[in-house]
Amino acid sequence: MSQEFTLIDQYFLPLSDGLMPGEVGIGDDGAVMTPPVNHQLVIVTDTLVAGVHFPIDTVPEDIAWKSVAVNLSDLAAMGAKPGFISLALTLPENEQAWLRGFAKGLADICRQYQVPLIGGDTTKGPLAITVTAHGWVEQGAALLRSGAQVDDIIAVSGVIGDAGLGLKFALQPLFKSEQACLNSHDIQYCLNALNRPVPQVALGRLLQIHGASAIDISDGLLADFTHILEQSNKRLDRQGLLGKAVLGAEIYLEHLPLSPAMQKWIKQTNEWSLPLSAGDDYQLCFTVRPENWLTLKALAKMQGVEITQVGRVTNQAGVLVKANADSSDVVKSLSEFGYQHF
Amino acid sequence: MSQEFTLIDQYFLPLSDGLMPGEVGIGDDGAVMTPPVNHQLVIVTDTLVAGVHFPIDTVPEDIAWKSVAVNLSDLAAMGAKPGFISLALTLPENEQAWLRGFAKGLADICRQYQVPLIGGDTTKGPLAITVTAHGWVEQGAALLRSGAQVDDIIAVSGVIGDAGLGLKFALQPLFKSEQACLNSHDIQYCLNALNRPVPQVALGRLLQIHGASAIDISDGLLADFTHILEQSNKRLDRQGLLGKAVLGAEIYLEHLPLSPAMQKWIKQTNEWSLPLSAGDDYQLCFTVRPENWLTLKALAKMQGVEITQVGRVTNQAGVLVKANADSSDVVKSLSEFGYQHF
Repeated sequence: MSQEFTLIDQYFLPLSDGLMPGEVGIGDDGAVMTPPVNHQLVIVTDTLVAGVHFPIDTVPEDIAWKSVAVNLSDLAAMGAKPGFISLALTLPENEQAWLRGFAKGLADICRQYQVPLIGGDTTKGPLAITVTAHGWVEQGAALLRSGAQVDDIIAVSGVIGDAGLGLKFALQPLFKSEQACLNSHDIQYCLNALNRPVPQVALGRLLQIHGASAIDISDGLLADFTHILEQSNKRLDRQGLLGKAVLGAEIYLEHLPLSPAMQKWIKQTNEWSLPLSAGDDYQLCFTVRPENWLTLKALAKMQGVEITQVGRVTNQAGVLVKANADSSDVVKSLSEFGYQHF
Repeated sequence: MSQEFTLIDQYFLPLSDGLMPGEVGIGDDGAVMTPPVNHQLVIVTDTLVAGVHFPIDTVPEDIAWKSVAVNLSDLAAMGAKPGFISLALTLPENEQAWLRGFAKGLADICRQYQVPLIGGDTTKGPLAITVTAHGWVEQGAALLRSGAQVDDIIAVSGVIGDAGLGLKFALQPLFKSEQACLNSHDIQYCLNALNRPVPQVALGRLLQIHGASAIDISDGLLADFTHILEQSNKRLDRQGLLGKAVLGAEIYLEHLPLSPAMQKWIKQTNEWSLPLSAGDDYQLCFTVRPENWLTLKALAKMQGVEITQVGRVTNQAGVLVKANADSSDVVKSLSEFGYQHF
């Protein structure tokens, strides 16, 4: 559609700044990019569908930010340097105000992380955004889910659960009594965690050197860490080592890093499922050999990133949740695990 | 969603065959691919939305084929060797029969063109398919829209207009009298042109050496060639040469390569807009320096690809349609240009 070209020129062309000589961005059948020597290309893709991955009344600036952020988060989980993105935008109509907002959010994140928009496709249909992000990692040095081993420290960046709480506020007004423990600043903070996730790019680069395995938390800590175990067990199987040890994990509830808002919320509701199983935080969950932990923690702190041990890789299949590292009891029912344990 | 992983494993994992040692396909946060030395990466993205880019009753095998074919066609227009694809599939529900069909069509084209599926995203929502295809081209040698110059031969591959005619049949049953000139074989042929476009990958590689500019015909010959002129004029402008000559084109109606079905259709309906302006053919439209034309034509023929001169690049802005190369008159009204001129 010829309108497509007008849209692209007006809103997206300015985002293609930052290409090197000999590279080609928007305006041809495809983009042409030059790989840095001795690097591998990392490719990630995530689609956000209106009403599924974000509430339909989310402002376009936030939709754009998030559509790129979730992809940069995947690049971070691979230990890659962000390179550039392409955008497939399907939208119901050519609504100028919406597009201006979307382009603004896109510009915010593309400039902050220095990822030019190199091309894409604009189509008419129900609102959905697919971003494919490309990054670069030193040859053979990508950080994989499959790198965990027994006794690795399990850790996460930042705080977790806030995006899940933000989603509650975004989807339905809660009863006053339910949110009585939170003030308007807390609620805004949680909505921001939902709508403006911060991809842990700098940490990903540190993990590429000092970490053992990583994934980003999009489906919840327990679900996502299970993928690390699955892939690491598959690797052991390929190496003929699975007979010796099936990897599992212990997660320590009292160690989970929680924001002040989340601490208040759990104190009132005892809703531990938020930090354990709510998605959309886009923090990194990773494992580190114990001997590398302190170095990594110090280096992360220098980048302004807090990382917290939340568990340990075991040689017993499955994921057990315990109160803390010294506890011998498994928490069987999260609802019985009250805030008093803090 | 955990269901996502089951789907991916069952249907898509087999399509990730063909990676080199040290490469990573489906199963991690992203894929890791090794660039060939001295090559640039070419990235293209196209989205197909149900009811917009294909009739909603299109069989899933054809949807899958086309979603990849249109992207390989873009790679061909850049002169690139196809490398690999990622797939963002949004579908309303987990319908096994549909997915089996889709995976079958995907396997057909991925194997035929040796492009492994290296990852993607499966989401719930209105049916839409975004494929991002990646290819490789020798450093600095990508074939661009901007390479046309005065006196270049304008040519197309194959025959054009059939997909547009196929779309008529797919969207609405025509009156018997309208299609009286076509038999059921003709109609099936046109539907096949619509649903199973053949990306001109081998020709693209020849054009990368012997051609001057190229685009694939997705929006119709006239509209797409206009993009070649726009980009070529922009290049001249950057080079400070635009004052001397604004590029334009002459297109020769009688030279357009038409299938037997299309010849019969135009004879009955005089509907020249099909080969000139209907999209979806995914043939290549390109320009060649006159001195390279015969070599290119012979090399293409050896690959089983017919190419046909359909016009000439001029130094007069705009696209003029003429009956043939020797005609001095511009065809002002296509409806007045009857079949008798053949």
